Amino acid sequence: MDYEAYFAERLDALKREGNYRVFADLERKVGAFPRAANHADGEVRDITIWCSNDYLGMGMHPEVRGAMCDAINASGAGAGGTRNISGTTHYHVLLEDELASWHGKEAALTFTSGYVANLTTLMTLGAQIPDVVLFSDELNHNSMIEGIRHSRAAKKIWKHNDVEHLAKLLAEYPKDHPKVVIFESVYSMDGDIAPLDEIVSCAEEYGAMTFLDEVHAVGMYGTRGSGVAERDGVAHRIDIIQGTMGKAIGVVGGYIAGSARMVDFVRSFGAGFIFTTSLPPAVAAGARASVRWLKEHDEVRVRHQERAATAKRRLLERGIPVMPSVSHIVPVLVGDATLCKQASDLLLTRHAIYVQPINYPTVPKGTERLRITPTPLHDDAAMDHLVEALCDVWQTLGIQRVQQAAE
Amino acid sequence: MDYEAYFAERLDALKREGNYRVFADLERKVGAFPRAANHADGEVRDITIWCSNDYLGMGMHPEVRGAMCDAINASGAGAGGTRNISGTTHYHVLLEDELASWHGKEAALTFTSGYVANLTTLMTLGAQIPDVVLFSDELNHNSMIEGIRHSRAAKKIWKHNDVEHLAKLLAEYPKDHPKVVIFESVYSMDGDIAPLDEIVSCAEEYGAMTFLDEVHAVGMYGTRGSGVAERDGVAHRIDIIQGTMGKAIGVVGGYIAGSARMVDFVRSFGAGFIFTTSLPPAVAAGARASVRWLKEHDEVRVRHQERAATAKRRLLERGIPVMPSVSHIVPVLVGDATLCKQASDLLLTRHAIYVQPINYPTVPKGTERLRITPTPLHDDAAMDHLVEALCDVWQTLGIQRVQQAAE
Repeated sequence: MDYEAYFAERLDALKREGNYRVFADLERKVGAFPRAANHADGEVRDITIWCSNDYLGMGMHPEVRGAMCDAINASGAGAGGTRNISGTTHYHVLLEDELASWHGKEAALTFTSGYVANLTTLMTLGAQIPDVVLFSDELNHNSMIEGIRHSRAAKKIWKHNDVEHLAKLLAEYPKDHPKVVIFESVYSMDGDIAPLDEIVSCAEEYGAMTFLDEVHAVGMYGTRGSGVAERDGVAHRIDIIQGTMGKAIGVVGGYIAGSARMVDFVRSFGAGFIFTTSLPPAVAAGARASVRWLKEHDEVRVRHQERAATAKRRLLERGIPVMPSVSHIVPVLVGDATLCKQASDLLLTRHAIYVQPINYPTVPKGTERLRITPTPLHDDAAMDHLVEALCDVWQTLGIQRVQQAAE
Repeated sequence: MDYEAYFAERLDALKREGNYRVFADLERKVGAFPRAANHADGEVRDITIWCSNDYLGMGMHPEVRGAMCDAINASGAGAGGTRNISGTTHYHVLLEDELASWHGKEAALTFTSGYVANLTTLMTLGAQIPDVVLFSDELNHNSMIEGIRHSRAAKKIWKHNDVEHLAKLLAEYPKDHPKVVIFESVYSMDGDIAPLDEIVSCAEEYGAMTFLDEVHAVGMYGTRGSGVAERDGVAHRIDIIQGTMGKAIGVVGGYIAGSARMVDFVRSFGAGFIFTTSLPPAVAAGARASVRWLKEHDEVRVRHQERAATAKRRLLERGIPVMPSVSHIVPVLVGDATLCKQASDLLLTRHAIYVQPINYPTVPKGTERLRITPTPLHDDAAMDHLVEALCDVWQTLGIQRVQQAAE
């Protein structure tokens, strides 16, 4: 087989479909967030990022940066091993205590990423609990889908946020049959939020454990910022809360929080946890500093929600098709892969605004979109600029507008 | 089902078998490596680490630490997104150029860990190349086994480092049938090294791609330090070289290097790459500084090999059963899980020496061992202390000695 020719052919097909991804080469700047330098074709330009998952700009925070540099200069760059083989540092122990306490749980366990936290935890539960059935929301993130699939446990897919459908599927098994209900709070591509109380009540009724992915919510919801489960007063009824330190917390890494035994079980049997080098001490130190700050500063969340609501309102006033979203995410429908890429390119080249196109496989074909994430640091002038730029791009490319507000 | 009771029961079984893992809580100290503080039961003690995978102490290097702190203060703590969505920083671009050049390849791609690099690359090749057959050495690391398994491609397991057996399996398919031969250079638990030239010749003869895991070799072999493939003069004949930045490079993260098309293929189709937050800019900057230093300082590798050889010789002279190893790894056979844990505990409590017990599932039952990794920074006094401590532990616990040197 000519492997190189095969790779070329598959890449060409992606390009023809408009789904070939070009990564923007960025250099974020402390003190200037959300502005950054964009390296392209040997030139460097100043642009504004409008699609960062550093939702609150915590990656720039002096306390986070300070904690990281202190840890590097006290303890070195890396951890030096897997968690079991010399790679558990005191910074990891302190971070896991902090995360457990934040979520009101007995214990927490960190992973190299949120992706690995989902994959490993779900693979471990699915493969290690005999006869378990996994009930998964149809819009769950790829990391959960892969974890469920690779566990080879029986699975049932329930319609997105449809508790009646979930109940119907759960009722097919006796109450004492092992089950896990798996869902997210904020779905990051649409910006909708799951009815946590109803889902948890349903799971309780049918004797299922609950696994909740809060990666797009931790830091941003609840008065102490630990997520939608806190905001909705249901955190104590959820068995496993999964989160990330790579989005609103501003650093990198993932975690789960729950009972001491559940955490010890995943720690002891999860291959994706056991066989990998642990996070650098500096990452643990930075994430802990960020969580401690976020717990005490609800005003950043108030400002964040106001910025997102303002962006949605102002774009809809100009007929830009903001998709219904009740969260901090502002998805704008384009509906075609090539057009979506063109819109993104034009925003960058003509207006120095960076919003990545979101195409298949991240979202279904036909729902291609620009996904805008206003942060507390996008001021009114930046917002004016964004609105005018999107209107110009919509006009130039002839993308469909809406007649009136969708919400 | 009573989930908590089930978790407790499984954990109790692990404890009865002696396979329950207790993580040592460590605080490494810049300037004092390989010494560290060990937090236990509310007390803090000074100990010497003899099992770190920071094989050369690069995690402590001032150039690595400086590059990381500079990046944090210039660009912030995290990358702020997936590689596609605002998370490709200029630091990533520079690091990938450096890694590609180090291995003499057209391109490189970084992942959050070596584990994810293996898992994602092998899953992508196995799932995306029609009818491909994956040929895997029987002692390959868990990350490769999981990648192969989850790809659901056909697989053939060849006997460890047995090229005749590999040839026999390859010969079952026509030459133009797609195949990948998957193996490591240094096998980290036994310390043996694969016959790269023979394996590559065999793969070439039967038209197979080659995938080589060099995670326990990069930084440590070859005059420019890029691994055993460089040392043996075969790097240009290997299609995919996989490495880590979490061991001898001293930071965290994994990567692959190879042809531009192969790398673009994995970049475009690998779920575990696409859907995860990218490494912090500081990690990329630190890893790049480390690689640049390692390329120029072969003397650190000479010293490293001398330290490992000295440890093996001195332990064997005293009858401590060092397992045959031709690499920098010094495995010492205990052969029983409980005894291995006791030996490790006694080394720590009585001698302030930390060597983690290596039990199942990391190694087969009956081959439980202490895995010692001398670094260039373990001086003669530390070596004297280690030898005497092991002799005392062997005596106290009545562990089997050998009559004469095994190599």
